[in-house]
Amino acid sequence: MSKAVVLMSGGLDSATAAAIAKSEGYDIYALSFDYGQRHARELDSARAVARSLDAKDHLVIQFDMRKIGGSALTADIDVPVDRENNEMAQGIPVTYVPARNTIFLAFGLSYAETIGAGDIFIGVNQVDYSGYPDCRTEFIEAFEKTANLATKAGVEGTSHFHIRTPLIKLTKAEIIRKGLELGVDYSLTWSCYQGGERACGRCDSCKLRLAGFAEAGAHDPLEYES
Amino acid sequence: MSKAVVLMSGGLDSATAAAIAKSEGYDIYALSFDYGQRHARELDSARAVARSLDAKDHLVIQFDMRKIGGSALTADIDVPVDRENNEMAQGIPVTYVPARNTIFLAFGLSYAETIGAGDIFIGVNQVDYSGYPDCRTEFIEAFEKTANLATKAGVEGTSHFHIRTPLIKLTKAEIIRKGLELGVDYSLTWSCYQGGERACGRCDSCKLRLAGFAEAGAHDPLEYES
Repeated sequence: MSKAVVLMSGGLDSATAAAIAKSEGYDIYALSFDYGQRHARELDSARAVARSLDAKDHLVIQFDMRKIGGSALTADIDVPVDRENNEMAQGIPVTYVPARNTIFLAFGLSYAETIGAGDIFIGVNQVDYSGYPDCRTEFIEAFEKTANLATKAGVEGTSHFHIRTPLIKLTKAEIIRKGLELGVDYSLTWSCYQGGERACGRCDSCKLRLAGFAEAGAHDPLEYES
Repeated sequence: MSKAVVLMSGGLDSATAAAIAKSEGYDIYALSFDYGQRHARELDSARAVARSLDAKDHLVIQFDMRKIGGSALTADIDVPVDRENNEMAQGIPVTYVPARNTIFLAFGLSYAETIGAGDIFIGVNQVDYSGYPDCRTEFIEAFEKTANLATKAGVEGTSHFHIRTPLIKLTKAEIIRKGLELGVDYSLTWSCYQGGERACGRCDSCKLRLAGFAEAGAHDPLEYES
């Protein structure tokens, strides 16, 4: 069995990316980040998803992005709610965290090199929420090139690192259909940007998720407040 | 005054890189990492160096690379001592930390974007210790390209990020001469890989430093055990 590092946020996308990695025969080494995001709920979800996929290991790396700030997810900026699709599509949202995926992938690369994994899966998607610059193919390709120049394994040729983005060109509905095919238990996942007991149903992330389930003709097993 | 983020390890190289940034007229925003390295002494040095250069701010980001391991600096692998130059020049040393500079620069990029800095200084050097893959020009150029694709400021064109490596082609002696010209107080810096009261004088880092001072015809103000 080959090893794959899977970045696991606890959300719907990373759970699906992990299930795809598993369906390709990889042993899953999950990697999550406790980085000062608004709520720890998503880390509980990440742990549950990793367990459900028999992950061989699950590292949680802790650091405090609030020291840097600059985002509604890590600073005192309100998360927008009740936005329509056309509003979400305009510009880069305030939930953008400066260089977050660069940081996450850098840790993923370190972990992959240490355990001897060549593939790093990340559930980025440029269709439904294309505002984030670090969810686009151009970024991923540039990072992959950097990864192979940055590392002992890359330079010595004992590994060639691939940043795997199986969801990058799928709609949310396609992601959900794919996950359901693979048996992903979406009740374990968490997408809401807010920290409530139940998902708010109103932030961009909830709205995209709900629209995706609706379009996929499937039932979202999460409970929502509204 | 333009802002520059300067990665500051507490060592001789980053202190010199910071002094060069200051001599170019930048306001210094220092960034250090408490990442599970063998000793915290280098962080005290980083703080002292940042103060001596009137840094506008100094962030210390904490995370635990020992969870990932894979290096003599973060795992239970002995740091080599008493190696000759030709031994040091062979291959990538066990003190290599997987993807460390990718992680450090990713945080530097996040910090730079948040404060509106375009330049990120890092004291990497490929002459005297070329074993580290993430100290080479090829890596730095690839990271810089990635940085501009990864970020809101890069994509929107409000910033163009430059990874500045003023030491990359200098010998250790040339670095020391340059620093002395700029008034760097090398008594504040710390290079030793070991965690003793005084620098060991025997690890690769001490040996390179001592040879550099000797070649520069200068006195190293640090005290050594041997």
